[in-house]
Amino acid sequence: MDRAQCVIDRCRFLAQFTEEPGHITRIHHSQAMHDVHAHVGQWMREAGMTVTVDAAANIRGRHDGLTPDAPTLYIGSHLDTVPHAGAFDGILGVVLAISLIGRRYRFAIEVVGFADEEGARTGKPFLGSLAFIEQVPAGALGYLEFHIEQGPVLDQRGIPLAVVDTIVGQARLELVFHGKASHAGTTPMQFRQDALCAAAEWVLAVQRHGGTVGRLEVFPGAPNVIPGEVRATLDLRHADDAVRLATVDQLIAGSVVSRYDQPAVAMDPKLSSLLQPDAPRMPSGAGHDAMIMARRMPAAMLFLRSPGGISHHPDETVLVEDVDAALRAGEAFLDRLEASLA
Amino acid sequence: MDRAQCVIDRCRFLAQFTEEPGHITRIHHSQAMHDVHAHVGQWMREAGMTVTVDAAANIRGRHDGLTPDAPTLYIGSHLDTVPHAGAFDGILGVVLAISLIGRRYRFAIEVVGFADEEGARTGKPFLGSLAFIEQVPAGALGYLEFHIEQGPVLDQRGIPLAVVDTIVGQARLELVFHGKASHAGTTPMQFRQDALCAAAEWVLAVQRHGGTVGRLEVFPGAPNVIPGEVRATLDLRHADDAVRLATVDQLIAGSVVSRYDQPAVAMDPKLSSLLQPDAPRMPSGAGHDAMIMARRMPAAMLFLRSPGGISHHPDETVLVEDVDAALRAGEAFLDRLEASLA
Repeated sequence: MDRAQCVIDRCRFLAQFTEEPGHITRIHHSQAMHDVHAHVGQWMREAGMTVTVDAAANIRGRHDGLTPDAPTLYIGSHLDTVPHAGAFDGILGVVLAISLIGRRYRFAIEVVGFADEEGARTGKPFLGSLAFIEQVPAGALGYLEFHIEQGPVLDQRGIPLAVVDTIVGQARLELVFHGKASHAGTTPMQFRQDALCAAAEWVLAVQRHGGTVGRLEVFPGAPNVIPGEVRATLDLRHADDAVRLATVDQLIAGSVVSRYDQPAVAMDPKLSSLLQPDAPRMPSGAGHDAMIMARRMPAAMLFLRSPGGISHHPDETVLVEDVDAALRAGEAFLDRLEASLA
Repeated sequence: MDRAQCVIDRCRFLAQFTEEPGHITRIHHSQAMHDVHAHVGQWMREAGMTVTVDAAANIRGRHDGLTPDAPTLYIGSHLDTVPHAGAFDGILGVVLAISLIGRRYRFAIEVVGFADEEGARTGKPFLGSLAFIEQVPAGALGYLEFHIEQGPVLDQRGIPLAVVDTIVGQARLELVFHGKASHAGTTPMQFRQDALCAAAEWVLAVQRHGGTVGRLEVFPGAPNVIPGEVRATLDLRHADDAVRLATVDQLIAGSVVSRYDQPAVAMDPKLSSLLQPDAPRMPSGAGHDAMIMARRMPAAMLFLRSPGGISHHPDETVLVEDVDAALRAGEAFLDRLEASLA
């Protein structure tokens, strides 16, 4: 458990590097990220790794294999945070990977701390891994990512770890409901065209289909004026793209202002099978760097239970026994990968 | 019809006095209101009236009765507007009243142009009439107000005029729905506490009870975050205060942040009976200066049809034949009032 506690302590230590005192806010290209690089780089060197920072500001620690031509396994996650974050989302995956470095294998290991996954600087996520896959040499063995679940599923089931089988596809739409603004006191019900009532029925339909309406704006927004227009967002995710697209078709109401579709990304079954074969499988509802890395190499992910399902919040935490289990799962993975190359 | 057309022309002429070129926006204590006073005062003097502006900036034109001790009948409405208004809401009632001045009666007539009914300057409506009733001498005969309906009821029924029997009571509440903000991708439906879904069901219940939700705000308001809090307003009006209060009790959901209740105000049956006895009766869903004036004297109101039900909008209009009918109804009212004093 000492090593697991050390991983947790290091994550909490890095939490002090923030752009906002009293909060954990570490955005791409900040002094806080510079300070984190100094410490992560030091830990990498202490583990026997060669440290570089690439042009996209991803920090990379390389631990060579038994031979100079050994293929490379990448293990990583991101070091940036959303504003007012917790101490573990992303960071844990990097710190935990460093703790796995020890003996040499038939493959080199490169631990990557991605510079920007959350996209808090530009509004565009995955900048670090998107830049990374443009420069990564062909023939990489694969990519492994440890990440907190950020949801309540494992906690509710009392399970410490799960292997991610799919990163679900996602549709994001913005819709406008058109009604007719008029005076709440003088317009009888039968003459109303209330855009909010139309939107309310739709919100409940979205709920029945497992989607989310996270933003909804009412215009003109005066207490005594019947809403003439409502703008709302739809977030719908599903592991099966065909189901997702059919559901979106059913849920389109009003006019569609913008639409973004992200297909589901399957994790590599072979690489995943080297992770705890008896661990439960689950989809990831959130996007991760592994989704980007999967474009260039086999990718696998291991989720650690999130107590209370809390993430992107100062109360975000992990259990020391779960980190310990993840470390052991990681070591077993490396051993099985080694055996598969023999 | 010439006189009716003159009333309409004068209203449209006054519409040029605005604080925002291209719109009709005339707020209390503006240069635009000052200019309107100059013209309205001139028309009052041309009609044989003595003009004063009181401390609350209400313009008042007095036409004496046959004797110095004659009681006073007040006829009026307001000269201010909401931002981006039409040309008739309020103004029509003042201009039309001036056109009724001619012969002398057993009562004096005072035409009042209230300075501020909409409350666009301070957020508090009825400033003009509230100040007026503090200074009005006892023994006033009554108050009569001509006003556009601002709703579609008369237009839909093909009826030009209606006598207002009640100004409905109104409840205004602000409520907060508490849920739990969490990640739209990682929180399964059974673990969600979505404040917007709760609010959506409530919006539809409010609709079934004839109320209005005009403002609704969702927090944190990100497309991929399940809403943790919704703040919404409820506007519920009914001619019967007991029904209104019972309905509000049924509709209270979440926590009530603020609550304002305005009881229904009955118009004076006797004074109302002097207005077109055969005209239909209807409640007013909106508040009017007559509601305030009724605290000190018998009050009556005559609604003119609003084509399309449009008000508080540049397309707000009146039909010349309806203004003509209102002028004739006004003259008949004065004659009947005179007869009642004989």
